[in-house]
Amino acid sequence: MVNFADVLIDESKKKNSVLVVGLDPDVKFLPDCLLKNVDYSSNESISDAIYEFNKIIINAVADHVVAVKPQLAYYEVYGSYGIKALEKTISYARSKELIIINDAKRGDIGSTSAAYARAFLGDGAISGDMVTVNPFLGSDGYMPFIEAAQENNKGVFLLLKTSNPSSYEIQDLKLENGELLYFKLAEEIEKLACKTIGVNNYSFIGAVVGATYPEEAKRIRETLPHSIFLVPGFGAQGGKAEDLSVFFDVSGNGAVVSSSRGIIYSYMNETDDWNKTTENEMQGYINEAAIKAKEQLNEVRFSSNR
Amino acid sequence: MVNFADVLIDESKKKNSVLVVGLDPDVKFLPDCLLKNVDYSSNESISDAIYEFNKIIINAVADHVVAVKPQLAYYEVYGSYGIKALEKTISYARSKELIIINDAKRGDIGSTSAAYARAFLGDGAISGDMVTVNPFLGSDGYMPFIEAAQENNKGVFLLLKTSNPSSYEIQDLKLENGELLYFKLAEEIEKLACKTIGVNNYSFIGAVVGATYPEEAKRIRETLPHSIFLVPGFGAQGGKAEDLSVFFDVSGNGAVVSSSRGIIYSYMNETDDWNKTTENEMQGYINEAAIKAKEQLNEVRFSSNR
Repeated sequence: MVNFADVLIDESKKKNSVLVVGLDPDVKFLPDCLLKNVDYSSNESISDAIYEFNKIIINAVADHVVAVKPQLAYYEVYGSYGIKALEKTISYARSKELIIINDAKRGDIGSTSAAYARAFLGDGAISGDMVTVNPFLGSDGYMPFIEAAQENNKGVFLLLKTSNPSSYEIQDLKLENGELLYFKLAEEIEKLACKTIGVNNYSFIGAVVGATYPEEAKRIRETLPHSIFLVPGFGAQGGKAEDLSVFFDVSGNGAVVSSSRGIIYSYMNETDDWNKTTENEMQGYINEAAIKAKEQLNEVRFSSNR
Repeated sequence: MVNFADVLIDESKKKNSVLVVGLDPDVKFLPDCLLKNVDYSSNESISDAIYEFNKIIINAVADHVVAVKPQLAYYEVYGSYGIKALEKTISYARSKELIIINDAKRGDIGSTSAAYARAFLGDGAISGDMVTVNPFLGSDGYMPFIEAAQENNKGVFLLLKTSNPSSYEIQDLKLENGELLYFKLAEEIEKLACKTIGVNNYSFIGAVVGATYPEEAKRIRETLPHSIFLVPGFGAQGGKAEDLSVFFDVSGNGAVVSSSRGIIYSYMNETDDWNKTTENEMQGYINEAAIKAKEQLNEVRFSSNR
């Protein structure tokens, strides 16, 4: 019996990194070298370019990230060929021994969540190691994911306090006892997490807490000591490294931090004419951006600003 | 400028039906006639059987339903081949002039929701006419769907009070002013819906309200008079036709009611040895079940139990 929290923490120690790189391929940001033969009327042709882009990213970051995180929307937009590109990307990431977090934010009634759990945490073609789950339908919507994760030695991240500006509208609603909704949800997750911890005292049941909300994260960290946080919003969304120390425990564990646009499109900031960037140059820029982000995170996660 | 609410209502009048049939294909419930040549190690082979099943359903129900509703999980579980089966199913449903509601329950940060909106409400291979959307991330998570729907003359259904037993855990949380969460969300949706109505006084911004919660539906109907309800949970999940009159307005409009397992697997109740059901028999049983459900709903939607 493996607890996936331990796998994630061991991998993070091995790589000396808590950085997760998002694989959110958007064709309009790809340089000419990847698009020169693309037929824009063909999802197959576009999806081939997406896979080539993902391979460049994976080659560039493999030694410096604890996991890669495909964002499902960017594949679904190209239908079955997009999902085929995702399958090939997952295979390629596995060949580099990378942990795969599918950022799917799924959640449905029990029987349907069970089917999603088979898709993302089973042995299917798009299964990774962990998946993000939306808890809006309540426990019978998220328990099938937790059960599949337990059964297959994988993990989940439940959405708790997301990184986007309007996340307060539902997640921060004040309840009749004066508590905020995300805080109540954190207490519910802790009830499950504290019963499913591994050797590092963390559960395979994690939580998504945005880098853009460090004040909230401090309270959530106290309420939910046994969940690893997946922290999106670092970089392009405005989350700053220096604010992130509150997400980590005293050993520098307890969170993995995701960046997508700031790393995978880093070549766009490097020259006036980024369209002309070559594949080798792309890989170089992405590699540098990943190393820089990894080091920024290592600086704060071992700091004592708690 | 077409308001999709009017398209839905016109179609419902033409067919004299508010029934939506869910396309939730589960291989373990298919009879031998569809499985005899299936190689279970091949997603392609399984997905072919799923498409054949969906064609039988569509042929059986096309004249009696206002829309079909593929449930994405049942396709994702077979990866790119599953999504290919969905693409073919959508094409086949279009050839029968059926409205397609993708039950995807997507929702993410703004830029990602925009990508999902392109996938489901754009011109992509898995685009339908309407999509279900999870509002847990707040307005910047659902507005990209509403904007895409407005631009492309399509529609959305925001999750409001879902049909599953644990939906109360988050959706019925009592807020500091004594209001329930789903009620506050209904008020937010109404602010958008009242500004986007068509000739029938309904908006293309609809809401999901479970058949299993008729008491709640009564209050939601009053708060949210301009949204069409997508009502799941009728049939197999326990929602009874006689409880559904509160979902409709005095003209019998304002809601479409979804049934999946009770109709598409109706042949399982007809013989002891349902595995031996032929394709023709399946089509007959599914057709009868759809007609029966349609008529049950028509009885209650024009009743005055309000």
